[in-house]
Amino acid sequence: MSLQANPVRHRFDDPLPLTSGGRFGPYELVYETYGTLNAARSNAVLICHALNASHHVAGITAGTADDHGWWSNMVGPGKPVDTDRFFVIGVNNLGSCFGSTGPMSLDPATGRPYGPDFPVITVEDWVHSQARLADALGIERFAAVMGGSLGGMQALAWSYLYPARVAHCVAIATAPKLSAQNIAFNEVARRAIVTDPDFHAGRFYDFNTVPARGLQVARMIGHITYLSDDAMASKFGRMLKHGDYGFSFDVEFEIESYLRYQGEKFSRYFDANTYLLFTRALDYFDPARATGGDLSKALAPAKCAYLIASFTTDWRFSPARSHEIVRALLANRNPVTYAEIDAPHGHDAFLLDDERYHGLVRSYFDRIHAVVNA
Amino acid sequence: MSLQANPVRHRFDDPLPLTSGGRFGPYELVYETYGTLNAARSNAVLICHALNASHHVAGITAGTADDHGWWSNMVGPGKPVDTDRFFVIGVNNLGSCFGSTGPMSLDPATGRPYGPDFPVITVEDWVHSQARLADALGIERFAAVMGGSLGGMQALAWSYLYPARVAHCVAIATAPKLSAQNIAFNEVARRAIVTDPDFHAGRFYDFNTVPARGLQVARMIGHITYLSDDAMASKFGRMLKHGDYGFSFDVEFEIESYLRYQGEKFSRYFDANTYLLFTRALDYFDPARATGGDLSKALAPAKCAYLIASFTTDWRFSPARSHEIVRALLANRNPVTYAEIDAPHGHDAFLLDDERYHGLVRSYFDRIHAVVNA
Repeated sequence: MSLQANPVRHRFDDPLPLTSGGRFGPYELVYETYGTLNAARSNAVLICHALNASHHVAGITAGTADDHGWWSNMVGPGKPVDTDRFFVIGVNNLGSCFGSTGPMSLDPATGRPYGPDFPVITVEDWVHSQARLADALGIERFAAVMGGSLGGMQALAWSYLYPARVAHCVAIATAPKLSAQNIAFNEVARRAIVTDPDFHAGRFYDFNTVPARGLQVARMIGHITYLSDDAMASKFGRMLKHGDYGFSFDVEFEIESYLRYQGEKFSRYFDANTYLLFTRALDYFDPARATGGDLSKALAPAKCAYLIASFTTDWRFSPARSHEIVRALLANRNPVTYAEIDAPHGHDAFLLDDERYHGLVRSYFDRIHAVVNA
Repeated sequence: MSLQANPVRHRFDDPLPLTSGGRFGPYELVYETYGTLNAARSNAVLICHALNASHHVAGITAGTADDHGWWSNMVGPGKPVDTDRFFVIGVNNLGSCFGSTGPMSLDPATGRPYGPDFPVITVEDWVHSQARLADALGIERFAAVMGGSLGGMQALAWSYLYPARVAHCVAIATAPKLSAQNIAFNEVARRAIVTDPDFHAGRFYDFNTVPARGLQVARMIGHITYLSDDAMASKFGRMLKHGDYGFSFDVEFEIESYLRYQGEKFSRYFDANTYLLFTRALDYFDPARATGGDLSKALAPAKCAYLIASFTTDWRFSPARSHEIVRALLANRNPVTYAEIDAPHGHDAFLLDDERYHGLVRSYFDRIHAVVNA
């Protein structure tokens, strides 16, 4: 029988202090849980999501035919993160457009959507908001906090912000901070959105429109950086849509058709203000900024063990970026398992079904389970 | 005394047959020459330009204070391509916005700008149009045809389209065809332009506007691919514009400021229809398409010697792409000099002043000069 997912909404009345200085709230977080919390409350695993995902990590949403969670190949009964053993929580981040309070939500002060008034949120803010959810669920300590990409940054931040509450940090295809090139791609995507006349300075909801053109371009740029050059070459190469050159600016190459399709799909379901917020959270993440650039020092409070994994063809967050993390952790004498997985898919690999990758995560969680049950 | 550049306009009454099937013309090409054609007419060098450049290769435009040619560090008196020895021609490509007939030119059939009616032009079309200019200038055979990036593609095409007319082909930082990723970046840039409401289906001239937002995004994307990750890191890193995080979507990082500036500058001088045409010419270039994917076979007609150069940090047209060309030429037993230059700047390196790179080109042209004068 397949896993059923039931989203739950939790309201926090106490405003959340933000890195930017203000406080935000009341607010709501939407989450899903899979599996059963054991009596010792020691088998909880928190999954943090990346740019484009949500609380719906695993299973199929109740009442739908095929709304699979975004990490269903990783999390579920018998999966590497086995929900027959672990109590897994997927939480939608503050600022999202998928249920938790975000720019599309109504601002009680004005009665209209927050839009551009929604505060700039950081990775650390998300972690604090997730810690409050853990409190509400009665979870003092996670067996593991896990995420890929932007989700991996949250897992890392958990490890040094709440050292007593994390036994294992699993951070996949991530980086300790964005490079100039990473920021550059984010900035181009944001420019495409905010210069779209339908953006209306973030107040597009009032105009019954969305900046679809900007979102399309933003998503196309994103997609290029998620795929490896090789993956694109083997999947699309120079394949033509209509067999021969048409000498036009219509779709000629399969890769053009694919990107346009992805862009259009994205523009129909993703909120432009959320896109701005989440890319900015990526830009700002830089734990070593507070320690003069010394990442070991920034991570020094952490007490957990780590699984760090990267993919050879990921050029968005290359293995070199994971090496930075691993070196800092080794200097701190944290237990670290590091794997560099030879996968062709680029950054997207962290979401895909790769035997060696899933085998690695499975073994790691087998070890966690053995300790939890000891 | 510095070199003075004087652009000349040449009209071709006879329409040019195009790869796309039609004929185009009459048309005009603008060109500049530097140095003196020798009595034997054997010291002519043709410089082909890339996406963003023009006939103004070297020297300073007459009557201006500082309008330097785009390859002034390479071409001029005493420079690697020494205009005291060689008669150098810079020609503006058909479809450009810098003087030759292009989408901004008036269509005599309608009395208004060609705009989207300007035909799709290929690299081979450009080469044929340049050969006609060579005829007009009485140059039967070039000592060298030279270019970087898209200009290198033209140099390559010269070598197999007009084998009797090229003694040396100098192709720098180029590729024998675009990869799926290369096409993807072009397509995103084009989408940014054509979805800008100010594009008006290419008829923006009639509306007294330009699709500035689209051009800005297109140029920002381009810039990211021209610079290496390392060059961006060392030039900008995570440097902040205002010293500290401002928690906003305004310019926070220096790289954002740089890209916005480059985008805005570009949108003020570059024509959107030209951008579409030139990126499409890049997409379509694929000489081996006519020979079942066999590049050696495609290049087989060529009789010239080659200088092929690439830059280690160029990820737009990486050294591997030059290797493809070199392998094909070696299989054909063409004389090939290949250099892979360890330069940090990425694709842009071909335009920059690098001692080893310029030394290489200088030695190569010294050899050409020795033969020309023998």
